[in-house]
Amino acid sequence: MVEHKTSIRVIYADTDAMGVVYHTNYIKWFEVGRCELLRSMGYPYARMEAEGILLPVAECNCKYKLPAVYDDILEITARIAEVKGATVTLEYEIRKQETGVLLVTGSTKHAITDPNFKPIRLRDKNRALNDCFMK
Amino acid sequence: MVEHKTSIRVIYADTDAMGVVYHTNYIKWFEVGRCELLRSMGYPYARMEAEGILLPVAECNCKYKLPAVYDDILEITARIAEVKGATVTLEYEIRKQETGVLLVTGSTKHAITDPNFKPIRLRDKNRALNDCFMK
Amino acid sequence: MVEHKTSIRVIYADTDAMGVVYHTNYIKWFEVGRCELLRSMGYPYARMEAEGILLPVAECNCKYKLPAVYDDILEITARIAEVKGATVTLEYEIRKQETGVLLVTGSTKHAITDPNFKPIRLRDKNRALNDCFMK
Amino acid sequence: MVEHKTSIRVIYADTDAMGVVYHTNYIKWFEVGRCELLRSMGYPYARMEAEGILLPVAECNCKYKLPAVYDDILEITARIAEVKGATVTLEYEIRKQETGVLLVTGSTKHAITDPNFKPIRLRDKNRALNDCFMK
Repeated sequence: MVEHKTSIRVIYADTDAMGVVYHTNYIKWFEVGRCELLRSMGYPYARMEAEGILLPVAECNCKYKLPAVYDDILEITARIAEVKGATVTLEYEIRKQETGVLLVTGSTKHAITDPNFKPIRLRDKNRALNDCFMK
Repeated sequence: MVEHKTSIRVIYADTDAMGVVYHTNYIKWFEVGRCELLRSMGYPYARMEAEGILLPVAECNCKYKLPAVYDDILEITARIAEVKGATVTLEYEIRKQETGVLLVTGSTKHAITDPNFKPIRLRDKNRALNDCFMK
Repeated sequence: MVEHKTSIRVIYADTDAMGVVYHTNYIKWFEVGRCELLRSMGYPYARMEAEGILLPVAECNCKYKLPAVYDDILEITARIAEVKGATVTLEYEIRKQETGVLLVTGSTKHAITDPNFKPIRLRDKNRALNDCFMK
Repeated sequence: MVEHKTSIRVIYADTDAMGVVYHTNYIKWFEVGRCELLRSMGYPYARMEAEGILLPVAECNCKYKLPAVYDDILEITARIAEVKGATVTLEYEIRKQETGVLLVTGSTKHAITDPNFKPIRLRDKNRALNDCFMK
């Protein structure tokens, strides 16, 4: 299972008046984790786009266990969970780096499409990327 | 089942380089729908906070069917789906107002807590709000 | 001088851990004011784009006098301050609607360009829009 | 003059439907540059807060020369430009790291306040931080 860790630091822009990170920002950081995962696989998303393949988000889920606060360094783990038909599902964990405590888990399911958002089967259209995802 | 509709207009800030609304922004608009729903029930979230009750997001889910684009007016429907223990679950639909076409569905599950994020049972702590939710 | 007022309500997403609105969000609301101003002039930005005219932001300035907080309704006033060469400058005020108290002032200067970001002179390219701006 | 460089990578969340970074996000990155500058000076903003000193933004200015796009790595340079009365002004440059090309310049002016947003003179209240700023 392909997996990658990256980290970010919480700034004020990410927090809200409850004093903690606003809940949609973790899902934004899923994007950071996903991009760096694809890059680590030798297939940055920018390259996918250049080759005419998009991964629009079809579904996302997020569970919030403990809040992150200003100045925390967060470790984002992203992994490819499933490639099925013209979709790929990724899973994520976000931990407080200093302590390793799990804060958030989640997943995103993506359609695999051409630039007109028409679903494509990777196996037929781009064997190299398909092999990447299947590793 | 308590339900409320409100609408917003998409600005450039909400879109991304794919030419459509960035996926986490719909979840931000769930917050708009939720706040206006609570207000319509006579219990604005600001009042809940003043009475020592918070609704931190414990879980969110979102399914993307069709994309919204710049300048679309979106209609957000929010409804209370379930109150159970110290949690409340809301469901949402986002439609393009002009056509009524369904773009996004989703839900958020909230813990019902005191200002220290300690779960509380509404029935015991705030009967008026509990009755609101139970309607 | 063409001027338009519109209003928005502050949500949690707009606030930060200082308990007030995060400073860049007022500048995002300048966009709301700007779009509604253009619409009120009969020239929504979407129409400008369809006619091949973009207004990328070349400069922005913002002064923060008093903070807005969660659930405030804010009144955004936008006006066209100057059209000069291939640029247009707008000015903004943001007030707390309930009290009329001035919270934020600012301006944005925009290049007037074609879809390739090449500057154009409105007078030559689009007389109708030029007349709108000059009113 | 105290100065610090840090870098970030542009994600989809930062871009808009013009295909470039949305203009307020550079100002959000000024915050990243500012925080890392303060940290490099031995005085992280979190420590300042713990010692009862806040730096709410009183004014910001931003000039956009060239746009950044998805996946660019941006280098943010932040420096302290002036400490005067109960205010501190910082200046920023954002460059495309790969080429060194200057994209954006700007500044933020901050009030130096206690937790109730009351202005304070650093010299009197916190000599260590004052010396940091004056270096």
